[in-house]
Amino acid sequence: MSRPPIDLRSDTVTKPTPAMRLAMAEAEVGDDVYGEDPTVLALEARTAALLGKEAALFTPSGTMANQIAVGVHCRPGDELICSATSHVYLWEAGGIARLWGVTPRTFPGDAGLLTLAEIEESVRPDDQHFVRTRLVTLENTHNRGGGPVHPIEDVRAIARWAKQQGLAMHLDGARLMNAVVASGIAASEWAKSFDTVSICFSKGLGAPVGSALAGSTEAILQARRLRKLLGGGMRQAGILAAGALYALGHNVERLAEDHAHALILAEAFSDVEGVQIESWPVETNLVWVTVDPALATAAEVAAHLRLHGVLTSALGDQTLRACTHLDVSRADVERAAEVIRGIEPEALAAETVVY
Amino acid sequence: MSRPPIDLRSDTVTKPTPAMRLAMAEAEVGDDVYGEDPTVLALEARTAALLGKEAALFTPSGTMANQIAVGVHCRPGDELICSATSHVYLWEAGGIARLWGVTPRTFPGDAGLLTLAEIEESVRPDDQHFVRTRLVTLENTHNRGGGPVHPIEDVRAIARWAKQQGLAMHLDGARLMNAVVASGIAASEWAKSFDTVSICFSKGLGAPVGSALAGSTEAILQARRLRKLLGGGMRQAGILAAGALYALGHNVERLAEDHAHALILAEAFSDVEGVQIESWPVETNLVWVTVDPALATAAEVAAHLRLHGVLTSALGDQTLRACTHLDVSRADVERAAEVIRGIEPEALAAETVVY
Amino acid sequence: MSRPPIDLRSDTVTKPTPAMRLAMAEAEVGDDVYGEDPTVLALEARTAALLGKEAALFTPSGTMANQIAVGVHCRPGDELICSATSHVYLWEAGGIARLWGVTPRTFPGDAGLLTLAEIEESVRPDDQHFVRTRLVTLENTHNRGGGPVHPIEDVRAIARWAKQQGLAMHLDGARLMNAVVASGIAASEWAKSFDTVSICFSKGLGAPVGSALAGSTEAILQARRLRKLLGGGMRQAGILAAGALYALGHNVERLAEDHAHALILAEAFSDVEGVQIESWPVETNLVWVTVDPALATAAEVAAHLRLHGVLTSALGDQTLRACTHLDVSRADVERAAEVIRGIEPEALAAETVVY
Amino acid sequence: MSRPPIDLRSDTVTKPTPAMRLAMAEAEVGDDVYGEDPTVLALEARTAALLGKEAALFTPSGTMANQIAVGVHCRPGDELICSATSHVYLWEAGGIARLWGVTPRTFPGDAGLLTLAEIEESVRPDDQHFVRTRLVTLENTHNRGGGPVHPIEDVRAIARWAKQQGLAMHLDGARLMNAVVASGIAASEWAKSFDTVSICFSKGLGAPVGSALAGSTEAILQARRLRKLLGGGMRQAGILAAGALYALGHNVERLAEDHAHALILAEAFSDVEGVQIESWPVETNLVWVTVDPALATAAEVAAHLRLHGVLTSALGDQTLRACTHLDVSRADVERAAEVIRGIEPEALAAETVVY
Repeated sequence: MSRPPIDLRSDTVTKPTPAMRLAMAEAEVGDDVYGEDPTVLALEARTAALLGKEAALFTPSGTMANQIAVGVHCRPGDELICSATSHVYLWEAGGIARLWGVTPRTFPGDAGLLTLAEIEESVRPDDQHFVRTRLVTLENTHNRGGGPVHPIEDVRAIARWAKQQGLAMHLDGARLMNAVVASGIAASEWAKSFDTVSICFSKGLGAPVGSALAGSTEAILQARRLRKLLGGGMRQAGILAAGALYALGHNVERLAEDHAHALILAEAFSDVEGVQIESWPVETNLVWVTVDPALATAAEVAAHLRLHGVLTSALGDQTLRACTHLDVSRADVERAAEVIRGIEPEALAAETVVY
Repeated sequence: MSRPPIDLRSDTVTKPTPAMRLAMAEAEVGDDVYGEDPTVLALEARTAALLGKEAALFTPSGTMANQIAVGVHCRPGDELICSATSHVYLWEAGGIARLWGVTPRTFPGDAGLLTLAEIEESVRPDDQHFVRTRLVTLENTHNRGGGPVHPIEDVRAIARWAKQQGLAMHLDGARLMNAVVASGIAASEWAKSFDTVSICFSKGLGAPVGSALAGSTEAILQARRLRKLLGGGMRQAGILAAGALYALGHNVERLAEDHAHALILAEAFSDVEGVQIESWPVETNLVWVTVDPALATAAEVAAHLRLHGVLTSALGDQTLRACTHLDVSRADVERAAEVIRGIEPEALAAETVVY
Repeated sequence: MSRPPIDLRSDTVTKPTPAMRLAMAEAEVGDDVYGEDPTVLALEARTAALLGKEAALFTPSGTMANQIAVGVHCRPGDELICSATSHVYLWEAGGIARLWGVTPRTFPGDAGLLTLAEIEESVRPDDQHFVRTRLVTLENTHNRGGGPVHPIEDVRAIARWAKQQGLAMHLDGARLMNAVVASGIAASEWAKSFDTVSICFSKGLGAPVGSALAGSTEAILQARRLRKLLGGGMRQAGILAAGALYALGHNVERLAEDHAHALILAEAFSDVEGVQIESWPVETNLVWVTVDPALATAAEVAAHLRLHGVLTSALGDQTLRACTHLDVSRADVERAAEVIRGIEPEALAAETVVY
Repeated sequence: MSRPPIDLRSDTVTKPTPAMRLAMAEAEVGDDVYGEDPTVLALEARTAALLGKEAALFTPSGTMANQIAVGVHCRPGDELICSATSHVYLWEAGGIARLWGVTPRTFPGDAGLLTLAEIEESVRPDDQHFVRTRLVTLENTHNRGGGPVHPIEDVRAIARWAKQQGLAMHLDGARLMNAVVASGIAASEWAKSFDTVSICFSKGLGAPVGSALAGSTEAILQARRLRKLLGGGMRQAGILAAGALYALGHNVERLAEDHAHALILAEAFSDVEGVQIESWPVETNLVWVTVDPALATAAEVAAHLRLHGVLTSALGDQTLRACTHLDVSRADVERAAEVIRGIEPEALAAETVVY
């Protein structure tokens, strides 16, 4: 096959466009450990404004932004409430326990989305035997749940309860802008329910590297110290910040296209016997499907698709994810949908070869 | 009321008998940090033999024995599989995460008892995003589940699977001797499924202080270092070990009485409208009941019982535990059963006073 | 040799006397995790009074008492100032870093005794690159320095400076009562310079097991939680507390005998060619000597003494410690002094055999 | 003053040149968390080759590279031997203790450079009371010591001893290329004495962001996991790696100019009464001086220099550092030297104004 494959594995695979590269190449820079990189400062100010917070901090990854938030809010021996499928718990190498000595307390949620009813009995008594319940983290949109937007009433109900209980709230907003575009609710409106919010520039927004954490001036001051501890203090980081600023300026509204594209893929998967969309309707740019073992494994389906020029992620024995983003055009999506519709037992059987 | 209250709060409240005190007073001792306390050495040898392991280590508490086991088996960034109601996760101050940087992964279990079916998909892939699944801990009998004995076939099935997966197995055997007496299965038979086993001498066995951890010579060598780290190295600890030896010699078979007594209490609770036994049949010395909110809170029921000379533990808004032990006689139990049968709305209402 | 050896290895080797054993056997007890052991409560109250603090907490070891103090005063990322030969840094298995994430910052001291001049430039600037200097720990008497009493003016000068700098002060008082007896300065007077003080009952005081940490009500409340975390919560610990109470009642003033005895041993060592007293004058119950390599190694000298019925501790290639205590009589000391005077090249050479 | 100041604060302040920016803008990129960024892979391969190691890993900072090395070599409870003025101990926010539970053991060194004689008695006995001595880290050139090159015989002697003792060796090579240019000894020759080596691209080499850690395939595999834990996994990091590759290709030999420039500055400082060069001769690009309190504080001298267009770093009450780099020309240095020679009591007195 001569065409390059259509890469639906993740929205992290986007590559900077020539225009973004130009903005990066021309970025004014300084030593950000000294607080002197004007482009980083501009990005932090813009992010704080976007999220309606006093301050923000640029980090090399979303994992670092989330982990710093845990470190800002918690002491060793504290407990953090989150979804059992949340990124901060599942995909961050056990940092909650390992970096901070904090116990994760997980709830299944509905497609990973917590409700107040699920957690309102969860605060531990004040007693020497128990951890101190301290932080709730939500993730919006929720990746592992199929990318749904967290209903804002649920978020607000949890935030009100958390405040009463003296708990802090952190939002893993790696894909918050997808939620903003899908819901029509402003980022700052979402952020009101949280003490800290992380946002990622290198997923759907298309910047090559970087995330940010926003919160109060005091929280971000602490965050800066923890970033140094983790080795996230970078020097002329304005090069990267320029990509993120460009992304905020050019790539937000267009997320709607990704969402429309994901729907096309989801419809294609729906037409396949033995494949089930995990969470319907597909609201944003992620399509998670379950493969019936009678048909094949997820790895076998992914291999079949790859053979026909479509890359997806097998993220469980029977679980497959396809993800739309900036580098996938409408034509790509239509071609991918066609390939997806070709998933059938005979085709798969004929290929049980290589991978 | 002139009679002392009947204390059913916990089997930790037992006081040493004159005979046990005498054995302690006459114990031959030495400096155990130097490995020279003959009574500690005798207890460790006897515990190792009882559990069919190469070696054992005396500790000041069951919490320390369990936490040392976690430290022996796991490195920071590892994951431990356990019941969501297990002592090691719930009542040990978050030590799994805080002391060792290990992530607890909890499953509800059936009355807290894990089955292979529940956990067999739980091992994380070998990937930089994930924790390393490393240890399974079971608790037999399972306190929070109402004291049931873990069906040995379930234990063995989990152990076989764990071995295939390269996972270590630890048994929190704080009340293992209750399981032994209730099941007729020897302690060493239970222990075969585990790399390390903790056992507590100061619960149903009636010694004032102390637990032990048993395992391979190599594991116990590491455990000794970790005991020093945690501050569990004691000097002339033979005084305490003598109490534990006495307990092993005199107080094991009689646990059957405690179990019979618990049944009497359970039957009394069963007769009360608005109170539900959590786990039926009651197999050992623990009776956990749920109080219907329409009747009262658990604290109100406990207050009522206390007023009539019976101490129990309210361990949740609607959850109450009664526990039989060495210091509760048949007559005490019968009196307590009578008091329990007197729980009724009018009686409770008349007392809404002080506590 | 038919007589039992004279054990000068450590003051931790003392065995409880019949009278102390009786006091322990008769102790009134309760469940101390519930705060119901009257003997533990009495010991804690007496210790608090002795040290002029609001509250105290019983622990299974001095290591645990010290480590809890570090945990009470410090957060991860903090720095603790101490002598490079202090117990808390040297002999507690790296707990400062491992349990609490705290960086130890060591100074040599004079015979291990810090002076203000040595540390007054040590507070790190408030900057993201640096640890937060937070705690000073002193050890009085200082074991590794040869048991000297810390000059009280030096202690007070450090305390004044620490207060100005916002640093907390902890005293490792494992042998504080030796300092009290040697100096004539009351324990509470020493304690005034510190936020928390640990004291050990199982060294010179002769109790089999136990230490305590004293401080403000708030500090001890936190300490209780940390004791639970470390597995130091014991049940009917009154048995042990009774030994400690007996020790406080009977074995304090007599420490003067141990000090006189140590002087006799020190004089004997002084008469040996090739052996040097580390710190002169010997003020309390510890005699540390340096062995000239031309004479022998410390292990060889210890082996020689052992062969003649005297146990000492070789604690370095050329370093030997002898320690007097409750179980060493004047006659023992005189006999040991005679044996020590017999250290000479010919005698050592003739024995290069076994150990 | 219209000219921009001459910035001698640090070699981290360099800004990418147009040519470097172009290389970055044109970099081929991919998702490096998936191992698909060709420019990152190229940089890692080139760094491994440069240092004669099997593999290398790109990181966002030198702090992260060093800290990952500590995590690769050590377990909690281990001890790391280093200079008391080393970056890994002093300027990395206490990460040794906080991230890894490892105890730093510091020695003063000669201008921070350790010798075998200083550390050869330092390995702790294998005993439950002690930490496990595990790792030696050296820093070459040694920043805080005035930038000296570590004599290679000293490095080799330490490495031989470490091997005998079973200790690992890590080199903080943030300024290793300065040592290479100053000594004429190849980087791979220096690296032979070490298990892992970090190197920084954003100091004298002039890249905007990034460091790398090199070592065995196995060590780098572990390092990759720890980088994820710390949040150092970046996506299209090839943009940054291109800058580092450019730096390796263009900015190594020219470090000799920086060294010559530093000598000019050092000579200027030598002419000032009341200022002392810390370490003579100045071998590389760092000039550390001590200011006599009789003259002024370091902050006052720095303020004076700033007023005349020269930025330096006051890094202690009486300690000042000047640092040459890519963005400081010969003309700049000559002008700075002139300003430095103007430091005199009258001039300073006249300015006691603002800062």
